[in-house]
Amino acid sequence: MATSLGANQYGKAEVRVVRVHRDGDTHSLKDLNVSITLSGDLEAVHTTGENANVVPTDTQKNTVYVFAKDGIGAIEAFALRLGRHFAARFASIGRARVHVEEYSWARLEVDGSPHPHAFRRAGNEVRTATAVCDAEGEWVLSGLADLVVLKSTGSEFTGFIEDAYTTLAPATDRILATAVSARWRHAGNATEDWDASFAASRELMLEAFARTHSLSLQQSLHAMATAAIDGRPEVVEVRMSMPNKHHFAVDLSPFGLENPNEVFHADDRPYGLIEAAVQADDAPAAGPAWDPYPLLPG
Amino acid sequence: MATSLGANQYGKAEVRVVRVHRDGDTHSLKDLNVSITLSGDLEAVHTTGENANVVPTDTQKNTVYVFAKDGIGAIEAFALRLGRHFAARFASIGRARVHVEEYSWARLEVDGSPHPHAFRRAGNEVRTATAVCDAEGEWVLSGLADLVVLKSTGSEFTGFIEDAYTTLAPATDRILATAVSARWRHAGNATEDWDASFAASRELMLEAFARTHSLSLQQSLHAMATAAIDGRPEVVEVRMSMPNKHHFAVDLSPFGLENPNEVFHADDRPYGLIEAAVQADDAPAAGPAWDPYPLLPG
Amino acid sequence: MATSLGANQYGKAEVRVVRVHRDGDTHSLKDLNVSITLSGDLEAVHTTGENANVVPTDTQKNTVYVFAKDGIGAIEAFALRLGRHFAARFASIGRARVHVEEYSWARLEVDGSPHPHAFRRAGNEVRTATAVCDAEGEWVLSGLADLVVLKSTGSEFTGFIEDAYTTLAPATDRILATAVSARWRHAGNATEDWDASFAASRELMLEAFARTHSLSLQQSLHAMATAAIDGRPEVVEVRMSMPNKHHFAVDLSPFGLENPNEVFHADDRPYGLIEAAVQADDAPAAGPAWDPYPLLPG
Amino acid sequence: MATSLGANQYGKAEVRVVRVHRDGDTHSLKDLNVSITLSGDLEAVHTTGENANVVPTDTQKNTVYVFAKDGIGAIEAFALRLGRHFAARFASIGRARVHVEEYSWARLEVDGSPHPHAFRRAGNEVRTATAVCDAEGEWVLSGLADLVVLKSTGSEFTGFIEDAYTTLAPATDRILATAVSARWRHAGNATEDWDASFAASRELMLEAFARTHSLSLQQSLHAMATAAIDGRPEVVEVRMSMPNKHHFAVDLSPFGLENPNEVFHADDRPYGLIEAAVQADDAPAAGPAWDPYPLLPG
Repeated sequence: MATSLGANQYGKAEVRVVRVHRDGDTHSLKDLNVSITLSGDLEAVHTTGENANVVPTDTQKNTVYVFAKDGIGAIEAFALRLGRHFAARFASIGRARVHVEEYSWARLEVDGSPHPHAFRRAGNEVRTATAVCDAEGEWVLSGLADLVVLKSTGSEFTGFIEDAYTTLAPATDRILATAVSARWRHAGNATEDWDASFAASRELMLEAFARTHSLSLQQSLHAMATAAIDGRPEVVEVRMSMPNKHHFAVDLSPFGLENPNEVFHADDRPYGLIEAAVQADDAPAAGPAWDPYPLLPG
Repeated sequence: MATSLGANQYGKAEVRVVRVHRDGDTHSLKDLNVSITLSGDLEAVHTTGENANVVPTDTQKNTVYVFAKDGIGAIEAFALRLGRHFAARFASIGRARVHVEEYSWARLEVDGSPHPHAFRRAGNEVRTATAVCDAEGEWVLSGLADLVVLKSTGSEFTGFIEDAYTTLAPATDRILATAVSARWRHAGNATEDWDASFAASRELMLEAFARTHSLSLQQSLHAMATAAIDGRPEVVEVRMSMPNKHHFAVDLSPFGLENPNEVFHADDRPYGLIEAAVQADDAPAAGPAWDPYPLLPG
Repeated sequence: MATSLGANQYGKAEVRVVRVHRDGDTHSLKDLNVSITLSGDLEAVHTTGENANVVPTDTQKNTVYVFAKDGIGAIEAFALRLGRHFAARFASIGRARVHVEEYSWARLEVDGSPHPHAFRRAGNEVRTATAVCDAEGEWVLSGLADLVVLKSTGSEFTGFIEDAYTTLAPATDRILATAVSARWRHAGNATEDWDASFAASRELMLEAFARTHSLSLQQSLHAMATAAIDGRPEVVEVRMSMPNKHHFAVDLSPFGLENPNEVFHADDRPYGLIEAAVQADDAPAAGPAWDPYPLLPG
Repeated sequence: MATSLGANQYGKAEVRVVRVHRDGDTHSLKDLNVSITLSGDLEAVHTTGENANVVPTDTQKNTVYVFAKDGIGAIEAFALRLGRHFAARFASIGRARVHVEEYSWARLEVDGSPHPHAFRRAGNEVRTATAVCDAEGEWVLSGLADLVVLKSTGSEFTGFIEDAYTTLAPATDRILATAVSARWRHAGNATEDWDASFAASRELMLEAFARTHSLSLQQSLHAMATAAIDGRPEVVEVRMSMPNKHHFAVDLSPFGLENPNEVFHADDRPYGLIEAAVQADDAPAAGPAWDPYPLLPG
């Protein structure tokens, strides 16, 4: 059977680089996990093992370290610097995708004063940035992952389809809990202050989650995405993935007790998974910004 | 800013169902993890929280259990049964995607004879099946994940691009190790024997991995995918994701010792990640078979 | 061969209970993972399967939920309440160990004001409490886990033993990073304010980490443990486990660059693991407080 | 407050060494994860940071690689070689504990013949060995972890204590599933064939699991441990930790269906945890064989 090579990409994943910046005795930290994905004229390496067009993933790793030496800055900017390098420098590489995760650190305090070089990890929330660069343009996504939020009331779920397999009772008061993963696409690649843009978008989404009297997790997701687009002109599209982390009110009636939404079991599996994209009507084309990575669906 | 809802999908993820089949005193097991994803006319639930078009994820879970009662069979067939149900039964649901992971069990032996109802988990390799059903058609993917393979020789990596950031030396003999994730698309939805098809495709890929004198991991991947397409007429496209699990020969020279590829450190991160699709030239259209799940890129 | 039953214990592990407390419209959360371990007159259940002396683990789970209904309070107090119940109520149960993990939540802010019922997970640091209760007495441990800290300077490692297998160069300036796991034993079971005691002990340990110019990770650990004992009369013993999370300065010399401790690779494995106990000389006997759980060494 | 240093230990954890052995063109693999723990005269390193008595964990890692160069053999023997080295060579080190995990690989077949240098990971079951060496003696533990087994019938749980918090109904037929972790202590350190001893002990335990009509998980555990001691004179003590991985029969009555133990939900948390030790009455003293590692209870 004659066959053809289809979509393909390769790169070095999860380069764990920590950059210490020194301002006199006062240090600051950038703690990153960088993954690079290249594509281009790579037919031969697949069909014959001819590597003449291949930038080794080991070289990609070295490049991250060398670029880190020059300073990191906002991770969107760092991803763009790396992406431009790979897309521009090698004739065989048409497109580069650079994805960065950033782990946050807070300064320790001693006697009420911030310590110049001692830190603690500040939460498990992860900030992300993705830059995709090719001859046609550049695309930048900011994002966050593992932001776990919960409302202990102000959430309902009623009026759904019922069929022969439905046992769920409508709920007019339930816990709503999720771990927010979000990515948002920027109108361009020249936001003046990526850090301020990230902080504002994150804040808008969190406020929308809190404010929304939720009739469904989809509605909460949509409100969060819309808030970011409405509040930030540079944000033109938001995609979110939010598991419904079920908290079941425990039946205490066998023990002669009522449970007016006080005692819950936090369940692991199964869980609902809600995903959607919202975009501004005047958004520029997304190009390859959302191309799948990894290539295989989950 | 006027906004529009884009791609969206929802469902119950990771329903852990175990089905015991009894043939007299002799039992057999099917141990599955089922994830369902629905899409369709779901604008209102996002914008207003109106749930009239929503099949609750709790109902989806119940449906898995009820269908399991009728027996599982091959997981491709089980995924199709569930997918057809959701896509056909609810006017608001246009498309259903059902993804099944299967964990394998082996029968324990006592005094050299197979025991009728005692089992052990047989490996961490996972068999998968995905069915996507909508009004346009049906698509079936078989697959596997976490199949860890290694060649202790017969692997090279030379002739690559060198630039200012290259330190890697060419290797004419190295360990090649990876954890294979693969999905392959079937020509249709009526394979007579899904189990035999799966076993044969898996075997073809493993043999190709072993046979190929590897000049690059891409070449090994391509050989594996091509072997399945060439050997099985029902397989029309293969997509694979293979991390390069680096094994570094330890430098023993400080201890006055040579290390002719005998002692290796198995490293965790970073790792290479190689991904590609190969398809038969006469493959029917893939339709939504490879649509991203989750929606967000990693 | 005649055999005897040795150490044994059983119980329900990882009961994930979330308790919502309502003060008018203002809610607060306690999010716990509770594990119970009982021991006593349990010979028969092992040797003959006679369950007359067994409190089912399902009942243990129910008991957690019922006790949660009465309110949680500090987790040390909650662990004691549960431990006393199991140790006192059942003739066959001589000793109960209750271990509680608490996950912290912070209130979301909207328009600069704290929201009454919307929260986010505040960090991956875990607070723990363990109560062991038997006829001889009661023992309480407070603790924390997954507190990741780092010093970007102020750490050395020199003067160590060198032998034929040593290649490590002495370091007068290195990154010191670890994930602190600590447990500390209280003098009694009646601390008036467990929350204040926990906060103060944690603060003393963090300040000691920051203050100590570290000549070894052991020294930092010892300083942290001693600070808690010195600063808090109710703390009579501290045990700590601290992995040395290696950060290796990347060799940039192949690229013509110096790296004065600016660019590091955060390595995964192997890692150093440093463990020690420090106790006050007038500490009361530890009894079964530190008995192994799980029973098997790692 | 005057304080004293208590129990303490340190070492390099999780050295991931892969050793390729070559017999002509036919290769074989040993894939290990080695953790070393040393204790001794280590007061000064804790109290003053004086490292004169410290064998760096980096040196420990190097030693693993150097010893691997000489060949691995059975992991019990490899652990003993390393343990003896550390305990004997350094005046400041009184005791060494070496713990080895081994991952198994199976040879791939091509055209029905075993391939000389291509392998696949064979299961997620882990074989372990622990050697503890000091001036008083040597102790060897063999073990296994993550051996997942299940009986689909032949398991009951009845006759247990009932109290006000009991809702569990007695079960005369249920699924029994667990992930076996076991360690067994050898009478001495000179077993002629560690591999044969391991295989036989594992087989005895698996057969006992299958044979035992289980009235409680404790009974199954005890039968497994006793079978190994009875069947193997070199095995003098067995300790096991077995989670009760609950499989709940799904209530299908809302759908007009019976469920005679056919459809189960495999739950994640909470789970029962059953632990016990069984020893031969003439077992020699265990010495430090079971000393806790890590030092902190879970």
